[in-house]
Amino acid sequence: MKKVRVGLLGFGNVGSGTYDTLKMNMGKIERETGVTFSIDKILVRDPSKPRRSEAPAELFTQDPDDIIGSPDIDIVCELLGGIEPASQYMLNAMKFKQHVVSANKAAIAANYPQLMKAAKDNGVEFRFEASVGGGIPVLSALTSVLGANDFSEIMGICNGTTNYILTQMTDFDLDYEDVLKVAQEKGFAEADPTADVEGFDVANKLSILIALAFGEYVAPGDISTTGITGITKDDIASATARHQKIKLIGHATKDKSGKLEYSVAPMELPFSHPLAGVSNEFNAIFVTGNAVDDLMFYGKGAGPLPTGSAVAGDVLEIGKAIAKCAECEK
Amino acid sequence: MKKVRVGLLGFGNVGSGTYDTLKMNMGKIERETGVTFSIDKILVRDPSKPRRSEAPAELFTQDPDDIIGSPDIDIVCELLGGIEPASQYMLNAMKFKQHVVSANKAAIAANYPQLMKAAKDNGVEFRFEASVGGGIPVLSALTSVLGANDFSEIMGICNGTTNYILTQMTDFDLDYEDVLKVAQEKGFAEADPTADVEGFDVANKLSILIALAFGEYVAPGDISTTGITGITKDDIASATARHQKIKLIGHATKDKSGKLEYSVAPMELPFSHPLAGVSNEFNAIFVTGNAVDDLMFYGKGAGPLPTGSAVAGDVLEIGKAIAKCAECEK
Repeated sequence: MKKVRVGLLGFGNVGSGTYDTLKMNMGKIERETGVTFSIDKILVRDPSKPRRSEAPAELFTQDPDDIIGSPDIDIVCELLGGIEPASQYMLNAMKFKQHVVSANKAAIAANYPQLMKAAKDNGVEFRFEASVGGGIPVLSALTSVLGANDFSEIMGICNGTTNYILTQMTDFDLDYEDVLKVAQEKGFAEADPTADVEGFDVANKLSILIALAFGEYVAPGDISTTGITGITKDDIASATARHQKIKLIGHATKDKSGKLEYSVAPMELPFSHPLAGVSNEFNAIFVTGNAVDDLMFYGKGAGPLPTGSAVAGDVLEIGKAIAKCAECEK
Repeated sequence: MKKVRVGLLGFGNVGSGTYDTLKMNMGKIERETGVTFSIDKILVRDPSKPRRSEAPAELFTQDPDDIIGSPDIDIVCELLGGIEPASQYMLNAMKFKQHVVSANKAAIAANYPQLMKAAKDNGVEFRFEASVGGGIPVLSALTSVLGANDFSEIMGICNGTTNYILTQMTDFDLDYEDVLKVAQEKGFAEADPTADVEGFDVANKLSILIALAFGEYVAPGDISTTGITGITKDDIASATARHQKIKLIGHATKDKSGKLEYSVAPMELPFSHPLAGVSNEFNAIFVTGNAVDDLMFYGKGAGPLPTGSAVAGDVLEIGKAIAKCAECEK
């Protein structure tokens, strides 16, 4: 059985979720893919730090060169977050002909053209399903089985923190500040919630969705972005009275001439819209193609295991391709 | 650019939808896949019959051997419907080392083990995204990027006719017979609606979903199946009063010991369940995996273009693999 060797950069929520996902389902994975996967190295800053999942101490390293450029690692999973050094690590791994999987929306949205070019130039796979919508398999659908469509619209609820806040404000008639405080206490919102509540996180994800659906790169900084901090209890009551829900939407359209429009902003959606029923920490991405018509993908946009499911899924797809190619060459 | 040659068996709604999808988006498809696709032969019973889309007369043939076993056809799309001769055609094509795409839930559900074995034995691809949920890309997700999950539950609204009837009965407080008559007039229900309203169509689709999610084959005839003909206006009113919606659900669960349970039957779902909001002709498949948690895929379960989108998507995936393999062998 072909063995595919994986290195993880980072062992926080996503890294440990990936580790756990592969470990708990390895029997099924081997049976169905005909490939075996082993996580052989994990880059961490502090090997002695307590973590949410157990991994043998000998897997940990503080030296990125034990993974990037190592002849013993086939797939590098970049799960660090932040634009740098993550982007440089990915580019370096590709130069060493290593396949790359990433969950890092900020790095991918910031450096999409360079990363795609490096993957192409080096003939390696670059997959990043986990970067948008956590476990929801929307990116691979856009680039594979939906590939026969010309897309005209994307609408995404792709930030769990803001969707949780808006849902709670709506369901319990609460003020933004009060819900934010509870969300922070429960761990649904960061101590500094700026990237979420100001919409910057959604702008990163929309940049990636636009690139995959429309084949054009729009830098997240070029997307007009409004968050939810200005939404009041009264705004929501008024929307409810008109049978509308307020949702933070990453929205992009392409008209018949090919012109793109895009924004991140709170939008009112009628109760009957499929996105209106997406509550709390759930995410959903709604796309319209000229053949398939309206489609929606719904699921958990965050969390160690859902995100780990997406990273592991990308690893599996690359592993199957490696095994097939090895067979092809025989 | 690698050219992939496609033959269609059948040119009804699905066949012509596939033809139209590939034709209208070929520029984008070639740009993104680096492969060009041509539909070179179409099997029809009567070439002179008027059809919903135009194809050059020279593409039509009444002889299946012009496609099956032809050295000029790489991918055979079986879009005939019915168990035979469709199943035999698919098996024959595979023996001739042709890749097969099918939209035919009845044939696949009836002969799943033989078809999968023939594909494996002959080293060809066999894809059938369109057979469940029309344009909704659920099957490829289950077998690719969700592959790192062990699944515990599937719930599918995967018959548009019955979902339309139940939605109309609910929204307008109507009797089953009255809605069925209108649905037949509008073309949403067949003149003989038995396969839909008795749940047999859903049983075929559930058999396929079980095979892909749980790796076990259950013949559709072994699935306890109850349709919607016994649902009355009063049943629905009573459910509504309890904040429940009645939906025809293909349902399968796997417990921790690996034991499967499955049925097709009307189920009551609370208004808050994501499937409760799936109305009229829309379909949705809800799955639960041990890493990804709850996921839902929503879209159009029928219609020439949505179904054509799924068939064309399978053709693209096979075409890309053919092109890659050709490159690999260089």
